[in-house]
Parts: sequence; C-alpha cells; structure tokens
Amino acid sequence: MKIGFIGLGVMGRPMAGHLLAAGHELFVNRVKPVSQFLVDQGATACATPAEVATAADVVILMVPDTPDVDEVLFGTNGVAEALSPGKLVIDMSSISPVATKDFAARIAAKNCGYLDAPVSGGEVGAKNAALTIMVGGSEDDFARALPLFETMGKTITRVGGIGDGQTAKVANQIIVGLTIEAVAEALLFARNAGADPAKVREALMGGFASSRILEVHGERMIKETFDPGFRIRLHNKDMNLAVESARALEIGLPGTALTQQLMNAALGAGDGDLDHSGLIRTLARLSGQGD
Amino acid sequence: MKIGFIGLGVMGRPMAGHLLAAGHELFVNRVKPVSQFLVDQGATACATPAEVATAADVVILMVPDTPDVDEVLFGTNGVAEALSPGKLVIDMSSISPVATKDFAARIAAKNCGYLDAPVSGGEVGAKNAALTIMVGGSEDDFARALPLFETMGKTITRVGGIGDGQTAKVANQIIVGLTIEAVAEALLFARNAGADPAKVREALMGGFASSRILEVHGERMIKETFDPGFRIRLHNKDMNLAVESARALEIGLPGTALTQQLMNAALGAGDGDLDHSGLIRTLARLSGQGD
Repeated sequence: MKIGFIGLGVMGRPMAGHLLAAGHELFVNRVKPVSQFLVDQGATACATPAEVATAADVVILMVPDTPDVDEVLFGTNGVAEALSPGKLVIDMSSISPVATKDFAARIAAKNCGYLDAPVSGGEVGAKNAALTIMVGGSEDDFARALPLFETMGKTITRVGGIGDGQTAKVANQIIVGLTIEAVAEALLFARNAGADPAKVREALMGGFASSRILEVHGERMIKETFDPGFRIRLHNKDMNLAVESARALEIGLPGTALTQQLMNAALGAGDGDLDHSGLIRTLARLSGQGD
Repeated sequence: MKIGFIGLGVMGRPMAGHLLAAGHELFVNRVKPVSQFLVDQGATACATPAEVATAADVVILMVPDTPDVDEVLFGTNGVAEALSPGKLVIDMSSISPVATKDFAARIAAKNCGYLDAPVSGGEVGAKNAALTIMVGGSEDDFARALPLFETMGKTITRVGGIGDGQTAKVANQIIVGLTIEAVAEALLFARNAGADPAKVREALMGGFASSRILEVHGERMIKETFDPGFRIRLHNKDMNLAVESARALEIGLPGTALTQQLMNAALGAGDGDLDHSGLIRTLARLSGQGD
C-alpha cells in the first residue's frame, strides 16, 4: 500500500519503520537526521504534507498536539488541499476528541475517510510493535486500516465512531493520572504514619485497591526510581486535553482538574522529565518533605 | 481459648460465630435479639465490657469508630479497668491509626498486649471467613492471635508495629475511594463525549488503566446498578478518618479531601446507602445530569 507518514518523532519513527519493513511504499514529509534511515531503506522524501497526500493512498499523522494536526491537515501545503476522493487519513496523535469531529467532517467533505487512532504503550510499545490502538471511525475505514494497525500494535479496539478513539485515550489518561494520585497519597500517608510503605503496598495488592498502577508505579514511588517511563510533562499535556475537552463539553471533572494542577506544579518544581510516578514528590513537597 | 467479643454488628456477629464454631469459649457483652443465637450456641452473656475482660484472655473489639473503641476500652465499666497482666486486646474496628498508638500504650501500661487488626472484605467476607486482615503490633502478640485470625479471614498480613494495621486500612480506603473517583470521571467524560462507556472500559482493561475498580465498579457504573456492596455512607466515614489522620500528621492530601467532599455531597443528595460506585451520580449531578 502507498502510505504517507507525517510526524517521525520518538513514536512515529519506529511505527513508520514497521510499515516499511512490512513491504509498504512509504512517503515521509521531511527528512531530518533522525529519519534519514527510513529514506536509506527506501522511503520517499516529500517536501510538504500536500506532496505526501498526493503520493499516498493512506496518510498517517503522529504529531504532538491538536494544533499540529490542524496545521498538517489544513495549513498551507497541508494534506487537505491535495486529497483526492477515496483516500484515507489516520490520525494516531493524541488530541482533542472534540476537535477530531470537526477535522473528520472537513476531510469527509473531500470524500475521504478518517480514523482517529491514538495509541498507548509508549516508546517501548512503538519499537516492539506492541501498541494498544484505540480507534474511532466507520467500520469500512477500520477494516481498510486494520492490517496497518496490526503491523504497529497488538491490542486494537474499534471503540466507536469518529472521535471515540481519542475519547478512550483521554479516559485512559484520566484514570492513569488519578490512580497515580491515589497511590501517591496512600503511600505518603503510610510513610508519615510511620508504617513501611512497601509492606502496606504488599498488604493491599490482593484486594480492591489493586491495580497496575499500585503494582508498577507504587513500586517506583517506594524505591524512588523515577526514570521515565512516561514523563510528567507528557501526561500533563494529556490532562490538559481532558480539562479542555471537559470545558468544551460543559462537564465538571474536579479530580482531573486537581491532578492537572499538581502536574503543573511538578513542572514548576523541575520534575517535568521524571516518570509520572514522581508526582508523589509534588505531594510530599506540599507538606515540606523531600528535596 | 477464652475469647471476649465486643461489637456484634453486621461484621462482628459472623466473625464471633466462626470463633464459637471453632470450639472457643466465647464471652459477649450484651445480648440483643440479633446476637441471641450466639448465646443459644453456648456463648456467655456479660453485662459490661469489664465483665468480658475479666472472663476472657483475649478481648476482640469490632465497633464502628474511634470514640466507640475509646468508650469500650476506657469508659466506665470498660475493658481496661478489668484487665489483668498477660491478656491481649485485639481491635478489629477501622479507626484512627494515631489514636490507636495512644490506646495501645495505655493497654501496655497494664502489662497487656494490643493488636490493631482492621479488615476489608465486607459482610460477605465476614460470613465466608474470607476477610483480609491487616495487623499492627508485636510479633509475639501476632503469633498468639494468628489462629484466631485464620478462623475469621484468608489473607492475613502483619504490616508492622502498633497502628500500622490501621494505617494500611486507611491507605486502602484512600486508594479505593480515589480510584472510584478516577473511573467515574473517565466514564462520565466518555459518555458526554458521545462514546459508549462500556466499549471504552473494554478498550482500557488491558493497559495501565486496569484495576479491580475499573473491572467491578466500572461495570456497576455502566449498568447503573448501585446496590451495596459497600455503602457511600461507610466509605465516607473512612475518608473522614483519612482526613482527620492527615490533619494530625500535618500532611496535605488534596485528592482525599476532594473525594471526601464529594461523598459528603452524595449523602446530602440522599445517595448514602448506594454502593460507593454510585459516586458517579454525584459527579453527573454536578453538571446537571441524571436524577
């Protein structure tokens, strides 16, 4: 298949690499030193997103944030102006579910398909083609893209229509962020009450408090090993997406707002590049502990 | 063994029943209609906690809150005034870890042992002798009590010294409460963004958002079946314990405080006797949804 891939960062590069290795014809929009190896292996370098969209039948985006998707699709020399009917745009970035519905409608007006397909699993998942991919869009577009998703990921779920993939990703980041907050408060409490947080974690692992976060991030908090993993800075971007989307939907999410504020504070304290389990440092700092 | 059991409520009755069935000599402090069956089966009724403490070698408490333990132990005709050296007090109520250290010290002054041993698992766990028991106290006292714990529970952990059992229980309730809040915000978000919350939950179950709460309470939220389970009213008592203990320890736990406030509101709205997964109703109500 002729595939365009726009956004060759930490995640996009290995994902595009898997598609190329699987025998697809790959078109990339810019060649930086980090992506030169894709061209060396046979990818075609294009000058603009429009050129990519002219050459490819399926255009995949993997860029940082909502405005980046807007720019790549609808900016000058963007994808939209070069799309011919029947092509398919797949946005694998993590962006606003609300904006996604608008983007998809504008692409649909060009008689092209659109899928939102954000991922979780991080750099390790991208390199090992083991990503979790949450997809929103029509069943036909999903069926067309499935072989590509299977080349890049392991757990692939069509959650529903346009935007529902992004919604699932935001829901995921809300739960992960607030559960980290939960475990951090509990372990900080245990430490201050004079108990051994490691033994408390152990006693809790069998019951209703058990979670992947208590298991993995709880251990990081206890050992104070905060190498990412997933950086607070990036999770903060996702929490901001949740807070902005909640505002657009006119719903109040007080726990999400609180956790985002604590992540803001973590960045202010210089902890932005720690793993998100490092949020326990922010909580401790609040009461004059640590540092 | 001669065992005193004070507090024959929903939890205490089946727990005392297991001890009696295992062949122990049981002394209870009051006989209400609900506990008459214990006397029918051979338990001895005493008039006061002091009488129980005179007759028994090990006195178990299972009462609602910190002031109740204070009253039973140190009130008029309380346990403490009748204790002779070498006896053991086991408090299986869920109360303040800070107050527990004071209570234990006053019991130690009478040359008696003390264990704090709160449980989780609820009425079902009590009836099936399948409780999780989190214990604080000396290794010797723990060894002495272990056969009794094994008669009432399944997962028994000595977390550490005096108070550490209560600390683990509070930590457990913090995590459970805040994870319910996390799942409720995520599913409310999904519903408002137009996605099917059931499919979002499904897509999230394999990854870092997975937890017992997402599995069990997430399903209750989606199906809107809020029969307890564990009542918001009781969880609110535990969250209050966390907030009071945090105040005593001079640490700030903002997520715990927020969740307690939402539980207060749930009680005000008449939802106190719903399962704690019903907290999603409080969140929805905040934005004018539901009811």
